[in-house]
Amino acid sequence: MKQSIKKIFKKNKRLSVAGSLWIACNDNRFFGPGPLELLERINNTGSISEAAKEMNMSYKKAWEIINVLNDGPVKPLVVTKAGGTKGGGSVISDEAKELVVYYRLLRERFKKFLEKETRNMAL
Amino acid sequence: MKQSIKKIFKKNKRLSVAGSLWIACNDNRFFGPGPLELLERINNTGSISEAAKEMNMSYKKAWEIINVLNDGPVKPLVVTKAGGTKGGGSVISDEAKELVVYYRLLRERFKKFLEKETRNMAL
Repeated sequence: MKQSIKKIFKKNKRLSVAGSLWIACNDNRFFGPGPLELLERINNTGSISEAAKEMNMSYKKAWEIINVLNDGPVKPLVVTKAGGTKGGGSVISDEAKELVVYYRLLRERFKKFLEKETRNMAL
Repeated sequence: MKQSIKKIFKKNKRLSVAGSLWIACNDNRFFGPGPLELLERINNTGSISEAAKEMNMSYKKAWEIINVLNDGPVKPLVVTKAGGTKGGGSVISDEAKELVVYYRLLRERFKKFLEKETRNMAL
C-alpha cells in the first residue's frame, strides 16, 4: 500500500473492513443471517408464528422464507406437525440444526477475516 | 461438521459460500463495488457524465455517490476542473487511485477466502 492512503487509514480509527456472507445455491442467496435467526427462533419456540413475532416479521413473510428454505438442497429444514390438543407446532430438522452450526462457525471465520483486514489497514 | 449435512454439501456442487465486502466508516458503508466502478470509469473517461452513462446511472445519482465519497475520510476523491475550451472534466485524486488499488487487492483476498470455504464445504 502506498504511503498517503496508509496514513489516512492509520489516522482514521473509524474505518473498518465490513461485509456480509451467505450460502448460495446456483449463485442465488440460499441461507444467510435472516434464515439463521428464523430457524433458531423456531427451534427455541417450537412455533413459526412465535418466531415471526419475535422478529417483527409477518407470519406470511416467515412462511415465504421457509418455503424457499424447504425448496433448497437441504430439505426439509422446517417440519410442521399436525395439530393435537396443544396445537401442532413446528420443529427444525436435524439437517437444519447442523446447517445452523455450520453457518455460525463459517460466520466466525468471516469475522476473523474482517478483523484481520481491519487491523492491517492501520499497519 | 456432522455427517449428514456434509453429505448434502458434497452432493450439491451448486452450493457455494458467497458474500459482499465494503469499507465502513463509523459502521456505515463508505466504499464498495459501486463507488469502485464509478471511480474507475471517471478515471478512464475523465468525465462524470460519461462514467454515469456507462453504468446506466443518472448524472444526479453519480453526484450523490461522489458527494458521499468526497465527504468521507479520504478526500477529495473526485476533483472537478473548471471548464476551458474542451470543457472541464473530472479526475480522481492520487488517494482515490490508491484506494482503488487497495480495495481491488482486498477483494482478491476475500475471493480467496470464499473459494477456500466453498472447497471446504465438499471436504
